[in-house]
Amino acid sequence: MTTPDTPQTVYAVEPWCVREQELHLDRLAQSESVFALSNGHIGLRGNLEEGEPHGLPGSYLNSFYELRPLPHAEAGYGYPESGQTAINVTNGKLIRLLVDDEPFDVRYGRLNHHERKLDLRAGTLTRDVEWRSPADDTVRVTSTRLVSLTHRAIAAICYEVEAVEGPVRIVVQSELVANESLPDLGKDPRVAAALGHPLVGEEHVSNGRRVVLVHRTKHSGLRMGAGMSHEIDAPGRLSVEAESFPDVGRVTVATRLEPGQKLRIVKYLAYGWSSQRSRPALHDQVVAALADARLTGWEGLLEQQRAFLDDFWAGADVEVDGDPEVQQAVRFGLFHILQAGVRAERRMIPAKGLTGPGYDGHTFWDTETFVLPVLTYTHASAAADALAWRHMTLPLAVERARQLGLQGAAFPWRTIRGQECSGYWPAGTAAFHINADIADAVARYLDATEDREFEREIGLELLVETARLWRGLGHHDVHGGFRIDGVTGPDEYSAVADNNVYTNLMAQRNLRAAADVAMRNPDEATRLGVSTEEAASWRDAAAAMLIPFDERLGVHPQSENFTNHARWDFAATKPDQYPMLLNFPYFELYRKQVVKQADLVLAMHLRGDAFTDEEKERNFAYYEAINVRDSSLSAQTQAVIAAEVGQLDLAHDYLGETALMDLHDLARNTRDGLHIASLAGAWSALVAGFGGMRAGDGCLAFAPRLPGGISRLSFRLRYRGRRMCVTVSSDRALYELHEGDPLRIRHHGEEHELGEEALDLPVPATPSRPRPVQPAGREPAPRRTDPAGRRMRAGPRGSL
Amino acid sequence: MTTPDTPQTVYAVEPWCVREQELHLDRLAQSESVFALSNGHIGLRGNLEEGEPHGLPGSYLNSFYELRPLPHAEAGYGYPESGQTAINVTNGKLIRLLVDDEPFDVRYGRLNHHERKLDLRAGTLTRDVEWRSPADDTVRVTSTRLVSLTHRAIAAICYEVEAVEGPVRIVVQSELVANESLPDLGKDPRVAAALGHPLVGEEHVSNGRRVVLVHRTKHSGLRMGAGMSHEIDAPGRLSVEAESFPDVGRVTVATRLEPGQKLRIVKYLAYGWSSQRSRPALHDQVVAALADARLTGWEGLLEQQRAFLDDFWAGADVEVDGDPEVQQAVRFGLFHILQAGVRAERRMIPAKGLTGPGYDGHTFWDTETFVLPVLTYTHASAAADALAWRHMTLPLAVERARQLGLQGAAFPWRTIRGQECSGYWPAGTAAFHINADIADAVARYLDATEDREFEREIGLELLVETARLWRGLGHHDVHGGFRIDGVTGPDEYSAVADNNVYTNLMAQRNLRAAADVAMRNPDEATRLGVSTEEAASWRDAAAAMLIPFDERLGVHPQSENFTNHARWDFAATKPDQYPMLLNFPYFELYRKQVVKQADLVLAMHLRGDAFTDEEKERNFAYYEAINVRDSSLSAQTQAVIAAEVGQLDLAHDYLGETALMDLHDLARNTRDGLHIASLAGAWSALVAGFGGMRAGDGCLAFAPRLPGGISRLSFRLRYRGRRMCVTVSSDRALYELHEGDPLRIRHHGEEHELGEEALDLPVPATPSRPRPVQPAGREPAPRRTDPAGRRMRAGPRGSL
Repeated sequence: MTTPDTPQTVYAVEPWCVREQELHLDRLAQSESVFALSNGHIGLRGNLEEGEPHGLPGSYLNSFYELRPLPHAEAGYGYPESGQTAINVTNGKLIRLLVDDEPFDVRYGRLNHHERKLDLRAGTLTRDVEWRSPADDTVRVTSTRLVSLTHRAIAAICYEVEAVEGPVRIVVQSELVANESLPDLGKDPRVAAALGHPLVGEEHVSNGRRVVLVHRTKHSGLRMGAGMSHEIDAPGRLSVEAESFPDVGRVTVATRLEPGQKLRIVKYLAYGWSSQRSRPALHDQVVAALADARLTGWEGLLEQQRAFLDDFWAGADVEVDGDPEVQQAVRFGLFHILQAGVRAERRMIPAKGLTGPGYDGHTFWDTETFVLPVLTYTHASAAADALAWRHMTLPLAVERARQLGLQGAAFPWRTIRGQECSGYWPAGTAAFHINADIADAVARYLDATEDREFEREIGLELLVETARLWRGLGHHDVHGGFRIDGVTGPDEYSAVADNNVYTNLMAQRNLRAAADVAMRNPDEATRLGVSTEEAASWRDAAAAMLIPFDERLGVHPQSENFTNHARWDFAATKPDQYPMLLNFPYFELYRKQVVKQADLVLAMHLRGDAFTDEEKERNFAYYEAINVRDSSLSAQTQAVIAAEVGQLDLAHDYLGETALMDLHDLARNTRDGLHIASLAGAWSALVAGFGGMRAGDGCLAFAPRLPGGISRLSFRLRYRGRRMCVTVSSDRALYELHEGDPLRIRHHGEEHELGEEALDLPVPATPSRPRPVQPAGREPAPRRTDPAGRRMRAGPRGSL
Repeated sequence: MTTPDTPQTVYAVEPWCVREQELHLDRLAQSESVFALSNGHIGLRGNLEEGEPHGLPGSYLNSFYELRPLPHAEAGYGYPESGQTAINVTNGKLIRLLVDDEPFDVRYGRLNHHERKLDLRAGTLTRDVEWRSPADDTVRVTSTRLVSLTHRAIAAICYEVEAVEGPVRIVVQSELVANESLPDLGKDPRVAAALGHPLVGEEHVSNGRRVVLVHRTKHSGLRMGAGMSHEIDAPGRLSVEAESFPDVGRVTVATRLEPGQKLRIVKYLAYGWSSQRSRPALHDQVVAALADARLTGWEGLLEQQRAFLDDFWAGADVEVDGDPEVQQAVRFGLFHILQAGVRAERRMIPAKGLTGPGYDGHTFWDTETFVLPVLTYTHASAAADALAWRHMTLPLAVERARQLGLQGAAFPWRTIRGQECSGYWPAGTAAFHINADIADAVARYLDATEDREFEREIGLELLVETARLWRGLGHHDVHGGFRIDGVTGPDEYSAVADNNVYTNLMAQRNLRAAADVAMRNPDEATRLGVSTEEAASWRDAAAAMLIPFDERLGVHPQSENFTNHARWDFAATKPDQYPMLLNFPYFELYRKQVVKQADLVLAMHLRGDAFTDEEKERNFAYYEAINVRDSSLSAQTQAVIAAEVGQLDLAHDYLGETALMDLHDLARNTRDGLHIASLAGAWSALVAGFGGMRAGDGCLAFAPRLPGGISRLSFRLRYRGRRMCVTVSSDRALYELHEGDPLRIRHHGEEHELGEEALDLPVPATPSRPRPVQPAGREPAPRRTDPAGRRMRAGPRGSL
């Protein structure tokens, strides 16, 4: 995965867009992920309209998946035998072009001009190409694509061809194609069989300029419809034909253009899927969505898209002066997070959003822990929807807990529809912390919104069932301590250990939150069978929770006994042996002191109240030295705590790593989809890191401090009906309330009331301390300034 | 696996044979395992000659296997991708019979008489049947089968048909059949494809009364030849025809018998296989073996078989008065252990011997730990051969260690040819104790034989490379203790824990033995690169070895922290939830105090020197209470230590469990092959348990004591060129030296010299102590006497 060459960004550094000015065929798959458009329901990779060349064709519908066998060399009780994999659905992006019979293909002829631009305010991907065909005809092709943030079922493309020199005959074929062939389906013939040709045609209808295809999956029993309709403008005579086949729908437009003349086609796309609805119902739903799209019209869709985003940015924007790469990256991240979650609507938010096939399209704990905080303070309804999806799957989690012999609910480590799909239990089933992470996201959302209806209908039950899990999973030892043995924390270079500090602290919060919310909603709690005795037993377990501490070293061991283990021999580890999990057996990784991501440091972020300042500093330095950051989730947490303990330049370096993960393809796998949680990390590193933002108990706390490389940071938040803005410079912090009632805030530990009048407060100086060291060769790339005053790019890293 | 009905033995209880007097079609597969014949090179299940009905057809050649994919739902570094599976080779046992055109099939017509007998002194399986065909013809069929213990490549069957009433036309078809269809090849289509039809025909030749078939495997590149030739005697006219096809060889004999007349056919079978030798060479080898067999003749083979066994029993027999079931079982076990190992000749001894397809035909640590001790003291050359096989595979073990990033050698957890075939690393790769178990078997063999050539050529290098593994696997903690973290001990209901006491103690012995043997062989050690510094570092690590102890409870935790874990809720565990690994996730089993077999108790057997008497007693009682014995390896160790701590009746109960594992089908899976290590346990429970035999440092120690249910125990041993016999009654022990120089022995701690004169010594009284308790429902079946004075059979158990 790691290759020796230095990653290069191919995108211009601009504050509000991501622009590519040259087509790099070898980076096509990466750019398809970066330029992916989605609304959380539909996801379209940034494939070229003409289909080829491509890195990886990809069109996705949230939670539309096929089942595939999960083989086990040695089976075990409770192992899932079948997994869920998101599949590439009917591709509606295709618009093929023939210029005087010559297919428009950028690999042939000559590309006089190429530009693609993802506009973060417009919510569009535009492309502007001038191409000279091998027969020396020159055309200009411009396209603008959007997946509507306001119309869940709709995407649209405005496609224009202009004759630049002589007159040309133009044929445009706008298509729907199902069962595209995909590169690399892996070695297992059964998996390839399940996923190679996943859709079975049920219906195909063409009608004028509209085509609808309906398909179903073979095993998972899901049905989908895809439809397209067209508005076509041409100066001259026009021939339009529509045809359909089981896996292909095609509208063919032929015309002749004189120099300067344009053919303009607006292609409306509609998608729908269901596990319940009949073929005719689904067909009609798609046709209706197309009608709605045409009624709104292309301009209408564009306007609504921009208006929606304007509103979003008003409550969510982050401004970073001094580091333009990070400025671009944090907005790019926020945009993709919004895309991933905004219209997911009670379906999951996958680790890659709907931008690629990575991780089989599954959702993991990262959504609750890293993505939902961003949404909670910027677009809270999307966070509520994601948690409502968890609630919908609660019966499956309860069933899974029963299968495992446990109480309460055991949410899946990885899933699309709610069933556990993990094929390796030590890093799957045993990672029970996901249940506390869900509970934490519930508590955070409740604190941020005071949404009592959500609390009653969704939050309470999630908290209660996860608290029950913890109460049964742990036990009291002879000294009365509450132990949680044999579980796996977030760090995947350890597994199945006793009293993982992160897990125990998060379980403690889970147990307390359940008791608190049950007390606040006595009737609903009673309906869920919660007695005062049960709630008391949660509080008791939380109070007795065992948190191991190594007195000799003055640090918390990640799990009991961890600090007695041999330290990994980093000096003997070669650069090409990272990421380590591809080069060392789990056996060696688990038994030594080396971490993929420091869950102890994450515990210090999420449960900062459980650590003294001195412990934070010592723990941070200790885990810095053994953290190889083979996880793309690692850098953001290191950034947040580095900032908290005053290591501001180091925090800035980590901010760069998390923010540029995909724009610089740092993990070398952006081709498979974006790292949504890592992108969320740019926001976290800025807001929770340099802003020092922490929430809970109805009071927002800040402890802003900037590194030398950032001269000004300004971020907007939504909290309990307020909209506020925090602007930090090297020595002052300005708090402004843009909307809502006055609010108590804390600034570096001191409480203030923030009302109509802005608060302008001094930032205390940061005491200088030695910079902690990382394993040799695993230092983050420095965000220093080169002689020309530009930021240097982050260095190469192999991570997952 | 557990079924509610009570297991029943279908075999008569006799001291020197296992006899079946009724054919139980529903237990056919079990009897095929019980009646399997083998010499360690060839193994023939006790299938009926006529092929059908069968439970599971089975003919095996040691180490003749096919490769098959090992699929992983989530792959990891160092996971084996391909496994080895012993395959059913060309079946030469087949002799089909037609009586007046009616196929002899016990499912039709009427079986007037049926008897099969495994004769443990003759080394033969005989069958005596009288059958009335549906057409009312009656014939008597007798067959005697042997797999020669003296001619490695040869098996033979003497088959007689006698007309009982009217005259009959008899046709006998003696066959070789390759690629028999097998029931149940599992769910994975790739595995079924690899194993369903594993042999590719290369040559088939028929010549008179002889047929030879040569085949090769598709993937593993092995070639085998099977041949048969015949001696035929008949009173009347005879027609004999031979024919061959790629997968079938057939000699058809037709004759007519008057009442009282017999047709007698001696079928000689020869097998050979090689990964190197050419088709013609292998063909010739088989033909030569057939010639040798015919020269020796049927009577000659029978005589040699008996003579070989007479010699074996003279140095190995165990007599048990008072418990006839155990008497039969211990001889049955010794016979099958001899069969499994005697002519393995530098190939492995599989967990099931060559009696069935269980565990894919793999060998595990049980061979070194449970089977080799028996062979070491009864037929030491077979133990030497088995260890020489390990030595042959040492380059693979060194390569595996390198792959895992370790020093020295890492022997495979399960294998046929030496490559790791385990598909689940926490209970495979991580179970590094197998390396110490091999070293322990080397040390035991060296102590028992003083075989200096073996020591120089094989033993030293095995000890050195395993010691190097341990030195690198462990590390010193800040207090100077030597820790071995994150490994799995023999108990499979725990995994990947720190400082497993069994592992650490066995590694300690391994390190010391390597240093000692290196010192004794300085030139050879130097050639292996062993410096005095390296040997000193082994001794230092051994001296500093950390052995956790729970001061509060006064017991050794199985691994560090084990006694802090929650105790399993046995009261809530239902009888049909055993074996637990089929009903609970590893996750739950690993994190709680419940053991499949008590490796701490095994440590007290093999490293008794490391425990005080009080610790032994307390530890035994502690682990009794959490040991569910879901492993068929468990009972024998419990028996040995129960006897040592004076729990003699309990030891007797456990003796019954281990001894009757297969004769009573206690684990309900004898159909897949015998539990060779469990059968070895009968010997261990008697000799090491009630005899109290321990060895090491050239002195044999005994501490004999009998339970109430055994009135007399007598066992023979070979040790350092001596042959001796120990006979124990309730209050005396008689030591006799049958052969060899005088020898120092210990009797209950006191040293004596045993010379020509027998020693008759008193057995001290056993102090009475309360009987330890087992988990509810997991008590061993009592070996008590029923009112008629017969032993009650052991109760039902589900174990693996």
